[in-house]
Amino acid sequence: MTRSAVSHADLTTLSAHKVRAAIREGAYGGHTAGLAAGKLQCNLAILPERYALDFLRFCQRNPKPCPIVGVSDTGNPHLPTLGSNIDIRTDVSKYRVFRNGALSEEISDISQVWADDLVTVALGCSFTFENALLRHQIPVRHIEDGKNVPMFRTNIDLVPAGQFSGKMVVTMRPIPQAQVAQAKEISSRFPQAHGAPIATGDPAQIGIADLSRPDWGDGVQIREGEVPVYWACGVTPQNVLLDAGLPLCITHSPGHMLIADVAEDAETTILTTP
Amino acid sequence: MTRSAVSHADLTTLSAHKVRAAIREGAYGGHTAGLAAGKLQCNLAILPERYALDFLRFCQRNPKPCPIVGVSDTGNPHLPTLGSNIDIRTDVSKYRVFRNGALSEEISDISQVWADDLVTVALGCSFTFENALLRHQIPVRHIEDGKNVPMFRTNIDLVPAGQFSGKMVVTMRPIPQAQVAQAKEISSRFPQAHGAPIATGDPAQIGIADLSRPDWGDGVQIREGEVPVYWACGVTPQNVLLDAGLPLCITHSPGHMLIADVAEDAETTILTTP
Repeated sequence: MTRSAVSHADLTTLSAHKVRAAIREGAYGGHTAGLAAGKLQCNLAILPERYALDFLRFCQRNPKPCPIVGVSDTGNPHLPTLGSNIDIRTDVSKYRVFRNGALSEEISDISQVWADDLVTVALGCSFTFENALLRHQIPVRHIEDGKNVPMFRTNIDLVPAGQFSGKMVVTMRPIPQAQVAQAKEISSRFPQAHGAPIATGDPAQIGIADLSRPDWGDGVQIREGEVPVYWACGVTPQNVLLDAGLPLCITHSPGHMLIADVAEDAETTILTTP
Repeated sequence: MTRSAVSHADLTTLSAHKVRAAIREGAYGGHTAGLAAGKLQCNLAILPERYALDFLRFCQRNPKPCPIVGVSDTGNPHLPTLGSNIDIRTDVSKYRVFRNGALSEEISDISQVWADDLVTVALGCSFTFENALLRHQIPVRHIEDGKNVPMFRTNIDLVPAGQFSGKMVVTMRPIPQAQVAQAKEISSRFPQAHGAPIATGDPAQIGIADLSRPDWGDGVQIREGEVPVYWACGVTPQNVLLDAGLPLCITHSPGHMLIADVAEDAETTILTTP
């Protein structure tokens, strides 16, 4: 692998390990959708140890938006239960560093920010069940349209823990009425990736005023005969961390996920031979 | 409810809440198998906060023996995500108190032992998938025979975290050859209750010398045409806690579980209206 830039297309047939290597070497800085097919991709929350117990309690109490798939030792940048030779300081293509509740910088390497008291928490991601929907010929509109998934704040209270609390964020995908039950069943098989939808139909029931104006991502068309279906979203913990105003916290940048060696349909997210 | 003793049979038709009330009032001190049908029952580990982060990491890394279903706030005896008005100091019929890695006392109320730095971790229990096996006409030998399930130490290393490490303990159930695949499929639907088996067949492959001599529980007969099937067991974390030699730690006594209000087949172990 050289340091010369490679494109998303160059990486699509490579293993998770090789994609991480390209990212680590600075050769690739883009999003990870569609890369390392069949492998689990993860949202990231890196925070000081003194907040980690409360954050794990928060995630345990809100498993649909915050499904925990890996937790590092304190100060240790490796995640051996998720993959071989993962170094969380370099193996994600873009990070967001937050200080005192405000975005401080967006960078491609956090080696200079890393500290001995940091704990990495990896959370599941919707790519997993979207891939499963596509395998079952259920359309995923924002992927068809080459857009980012539409995300919305809701009025659904999260279960608090310590200084962590807030409202759930959801993604919305329009699903043909005849396939809604199947979409629910398929996504329910992936509790490590937000599981079954949290609601379907009328957006007002969960406090969404206008489906054409998402809070994040892009609006998508809802066609005749389609029903809006809402899944818990991994942006939820990012918002909660931001609101908590921690002195330091690091997340991935949206779409720039950690790619694990774990199969996305594995029974657990723990490598059997760490 | 009076303080006069009630029998297991008196309780079989009562709700989880009423069974907990009978236990809290000291009217019932027996095991909980078969009570509050359809509700989740939980293994318990109560430990000082300074060990809780490592213990949660340990459970996350070993989800089959240690499926986390609830975590309390520090010093708070309630578990609102698991049930209404649960008081963990009084609502389990028998507790084991360990001090410096040795059993100190077995008592029916831990109010006098409770301290402001304690954290309760509730873990799933095999009753959940056993009930599902029985609903599908798959025999469960130790239940048929009125015995305790046979449990065995294995040679399977757990993934360590902090001072927590050790070998996995498994339960064994003889299953007719023709039903083994179905038993695997059914139990895999309950990741909050040990999930699919970790092995089938030859006990030597996982370091068990003699199936007729379990390390805990009772030996059961394996009949012609039956295969021994091994599931991860909730005694695993109890052994690990014991070996860690914590100054104080409290567990339930075997078979004397915490009964939650959560349905055992719910998608998550979090009450939607806490």
